[in-house]
This record gives sequence, C-alpha cells and structure tokens, in this order.
Amino acid sequence: MIHKLIQKIQKTDAPIVVGLDPMLSYVPEHIQKKAFSEFGETLEGAAEAIWQFNKEIVDKTYDLIPAVKPQIAMYEQFGIEGLKVYKKTVDYCRSKDLVVIGDVKRGDIGSTSAAYAAGHLGKVQVGSNICRGLDEDFITVNPYLGSDGIKPFIDVCKEEKKGLFILVKTSNPSSGEFQDRLVDGRPLYELVGEKVAQWGADFCGGSYSYIGAVVGATYPETGKTLRKIMPKSFILVPGYGAQGGKGKDLVHYFNEDGLGAIVNSSRGIIAAYKQEAYQKFGPENFADASRAAVEAMIQDLKEARN
Amino acid sequence: MIHKLIQKIQKTDAPIVVGLDPMLSYVPEHIQKKAFSEFGETLEGAAEAIWQFNKEIVDKTYDLIPAVKPQIAMYEQFGIEGLKVYKKTVDYCRSKDLVVIGDVKRGDIGSTSAAYAAGHLGKVQVGSNICRGLDEDFITVNPYLGSDGIKPFIDVCKEEKKGLFILVKTSNPSSGEFQDRLVDGRPLYELVGEKVAQWGADFCGGSYSYIGAVVGATYPETGKTLRKIMPKSFILVPGYGAQGGKGKDLVHYFNEDGLGAIVNSSRGIIAAYKQEAYQKFGPENFADASRAAVEAMIQDLKEARN
Repeated sequence: MIHKLIQKIQKTDAPIVVGLDPMLSYVPEHIQKKAFSEFGETLEGAAEAIWQFNKEIVDKTYDLIPAVKPQIAMYEQFGIEGLKVYKKTVDYCRSKDLVVIGDVKRGDIGSTSAAYAAGHLGKVQVGSNICRGLDEDFITVNPYLGSDGIKPFIDVCKEEKKGLFILVKTSNPSSGEFQDRLVDGRPLYELVGEKVAQWGADFCGGSYSYIGAVVGATYPETGKTLRKIMPKSFILVPGYGAQGGKGKDLVHYFNEDGLGAIVNSSRGIIAAYKQEAYQKFGPENFADASRAAVEAMIQDLKEARN
Repeated sequence: MIHKLIQKIQKTDAPIVVGLDPMLSYVPEHIQKKAFSEFGETLEGAAEAIWQFNKEIVDKTYDLIPAVKPQIAMYEQFGIEGLKVYKKTVDYCRSKDLVVIGDVKRGDIGSTSAAYAAGHLGKVQVGSNICRGLDEDFITVNPYLGSDGIKPFIDVCKEEKKGLFILVKTSNPSSGEFQDRLVDGRPLYELVGEKVAQWGADFCGGSYSYIGAVVGATYPETGKTLRKIMPKSFILVPGYGAQGGKGKDLVHYFNEDGLGAIVNSSRGIIAAYKQEAYQKFGPENFADASRAAVEAMIQDLKEARN
C-alpha cells in the first residue's frame, strides 16, 4: 500500500491528504435540512448529513489527491450511526481509488492490539469464512504501550500489505508535556522515532517502509530531526492550515527525492467555504470551495519544495 | 459515577470488574452454531454469538459484581456488526445497574478528543435534539498527547458526572519501553501519575476523584508508588489472573479505607469453563463457571486485603 501511496503522490504531484473530519457545524444548512427531513433530528439524521457532505467533497476532489484521512472520532461521536458512515466513507473513497488512512489512534496490548489490527486492516475468521471489518489501507497508532502493543499491527500490515502511521510528535500545544521530556538527554519523541525506524526497517515496499510516523506541522525543527532519525518512514503531517503550519515550514519533512511526507489538511479544506478566501462559492457550492482549497494547498507545497 | 462505583463496591464487597472481552474462540460451540444458523458465518453471525455469550455471563454474575469493562477492540474486530453488540452490551449492563467502564483507550487532541468524549460519555446536539452515542459510565484514555488531549474528556466528565481511567503503567511486558524511561531521574509513568492526580484534584465525588488511572497488576512495586502519588485516584488494575497478577500482589493498590482500586479479570472469568478448575461445568454451563470464577476472585482479594 505504501507503493500505491507513493505512485499516487507522484501522479498527482500532491503530497497531501484531505482530512475528512466532519463536524456537524461544517455541514451547510441545506444538507442538514434534507437529512433531518428524511431521518429526523437524530443520530441517523446527523450521520446522513455528514455522509452527503463527505460524498460531495470526495466527488469534487478525488482526482487531485492521493489520499484521504477520515478521523474516526468525528463519526464515533454519533455512535453506531456515525460509525456506519465512517465505514461508508472508507468504502466510497476506496472505490474512487483513494488511499484511505483511518485516523483511529488505536493502541493496546497483545491480543487486544491484534483485534484492532484485524478490525481495521485485516480480517477475522468466522466459521469457515473470512470476513473484513472496517478495512482501511493505513491507520494511525499510539505507541505509549511499547513494542508488544505495536507488533500485532505490524504483523497484519505485513500480511495485508497495508501500513501504519505511529504517533511520534503530535501537533497540539501540550504535546511536549510527555513527548518532549528528556530521556538520557534526548526528547522522548526521538526515542519513539528510533523505535519507528527499527519497527519499520524490515517492512519496506521499495524505498519506503510500511511503517510511518505522525509528526505535527507545528514543530518544524522537530520534523527536521525526525526526518533524519527515520529516513525510510513516511511522515504524516497534521497541523497544516487551521492549526498554523505552512508549506515553507514543511520542507524538511521531505527527503531529497521529494517524497517521504504527506501533509494533512482537514478544516482548511472541508470547511473552506467558511473562510473569507472562498466565501464567493457560498454554502451551496461548498465542495467547489474545497476543490479550490486543495489546489491552493498543492501549489503552496509545490513552491515550498522547489 | 465514582460515587455509584464506590457504593456498589461496598455493597458487593467486591472491588472487581469483569472484562467482557469476548474472543470468538471463547464462545462455546452450541452458541456459535445457533448464531451462525440464524445469521450465517458472517460478521453478523459472529456478533450475535458474542452477544449471547456476554448476555449469559452478565445474567449469571451481575448480582456479585459492581462493574464490567467491555474491551471495544474485541467488538471492533467485527466491524459495524461488532460495534452494535458493544453498544447492546453497554446498554444491557447499565439496565442491570452495573457500572460500565468502556475500555476504549481513546486519546487525541482538542476538538477530536471532544468528539470522542461526546460519543462515549456525553451527548451531541442534532438540530434541536440532544442525542447520546455509546454512553458508557467511564472510559479508559491514553495520555501520550498531553493535557490538551485530556481536558475535553474531563470537561464532559464534569458535566455528566462520569469518569476516566487514564493509562499510567500498563500490564504488558514492553510497557517499560517508554513508560519506564527516566525523566529527571524518575520513570515517565510517575510524571503521568502526577498529572493524573493534578487533573483529578478538582473533580472529587466525596473522597475519590472522577479521574482514575490504569496501573497493571504485573508491577506491584510500581502500584505501591503510584498509589501514593495519586491518593485520590481510583486505580483500575488489569493483568490479574491470566496475565499473572494475584490478589496478594495487589494489596498496595488499595488505600487504608480498603478502597481505591478495582481489579479487572477478563479471560479468567469469561473463559473460566476452559480452565481445569472449572472444567466440570462443561461448555453448556460456561456462565456458571464464570460465576464460580468470580466468587473465587472475590475470595482471593478479600484474603489479600485482610
């Protein structure tokens, strides 16, 4: 799958991923109204609204981008109805040949991590049948529980040719509270980065590993260091746009081959129509605003890398 | 909710929680067969099998115990069908007046943590209605992203009078890889424990805080230290039984009031009928074996605390 991701990045010349993190407040009123008239002001109605919102954004952007990253929390907030739309979104994006990165930040121990891995990336045996649960291409994983929490995910990735992005340094203000603490004189995130490099060393699809890392856009110097510590890991970079990261800050997240990073924007793209720059589109044409925002982001990153 | 948990622990004299972590391989053949004959060897069939399994165990043990802890990964592995049974299990246990600890180990930043908190502990606004998603009483949370990832969960707990157990020191062999690393001469888990104590300080329901911690049974000395660092935090203790922890190892996880800890056993109870000690019950009476295993665990912990 890392192969496919790289090919698609090269084809689109867009090392970007659209974060499908729909808040109900992002969904234009006409879509909410229609969904509520059909399913009521219920979890089902809310789920239908975000599904229609997602679908239109995907339809208007899929040819420009290699990948999407649905944030499962935004679906989980609507309970089972929301999770059904998460699954529907994953399947729809895969049908459009997009690489789907499930931003699920799961992580547990042994058999529990194995269950998460089976549900998100692999398969389960039911009687004599093989069944698949949520079936994303990549997922994000939390490393706090150490190697034996990560290994079950890696095993499934190996079997399924799928991949992981492991949290190393997150984009939020208090990420430093634990991640930056010095261990033997070096921040914890560097140790986690080294582990990611080790875990991924044996699982390369060409020049890059299946096992990538999450490093926030908001800490460019950290990105530079971690790029060197994990030369073969793709870096998934959240925090671009709404969280403050800019293209020029991200140049060191890439390797000299122009690859090695994929930059996420969520709100900046899916709720673009709410920004002054794209207001002319209006809520009715929200997905055209998203397309314009994708084009601007591609351009920003292109200039930064040149 | 910490109030209710304490009251129920006192009433049952059982500081234990039954981990409803059903693997399909734990479910006796007669239940699997019936479920598959109705729903096929499908995700739906698997989900039905684990639902019937759970229900019978809850029916046979609910009067002895204060709480259950369904591990969501075991449901998530069966995709949406599994998650429906997670929700059904949560609702059923609440209808039996059990305290439900959703073992979900979620954790993210700002608005994403807020979405998880809304989905698992709180509510969402849909049009003019208030709706509830998964609606557990407590959940487990991962601290790697720091305070601003935890705060949104605490806000919802405050509003809903619900609670958290934050991962501090997990029970798995490689938990030490990051959690034990020395920061200013002290293991990282102590720093996390201090944060848990701080986060919880303002949110007490009587003598204990809404904000608890997870500390594995497999590291008794660590439990002793962390008990002192977080005097007002309830400790959720995994790793008893199948993972090697015993009652006598856990005495220091409790405060002098005999409270402050709740010990989880999953496989040791729900798959008790597979152990030699309970084989006499046979697969048909698997839930009676679970009841006997609960009684033995209560006794073991009682002896340890005396």
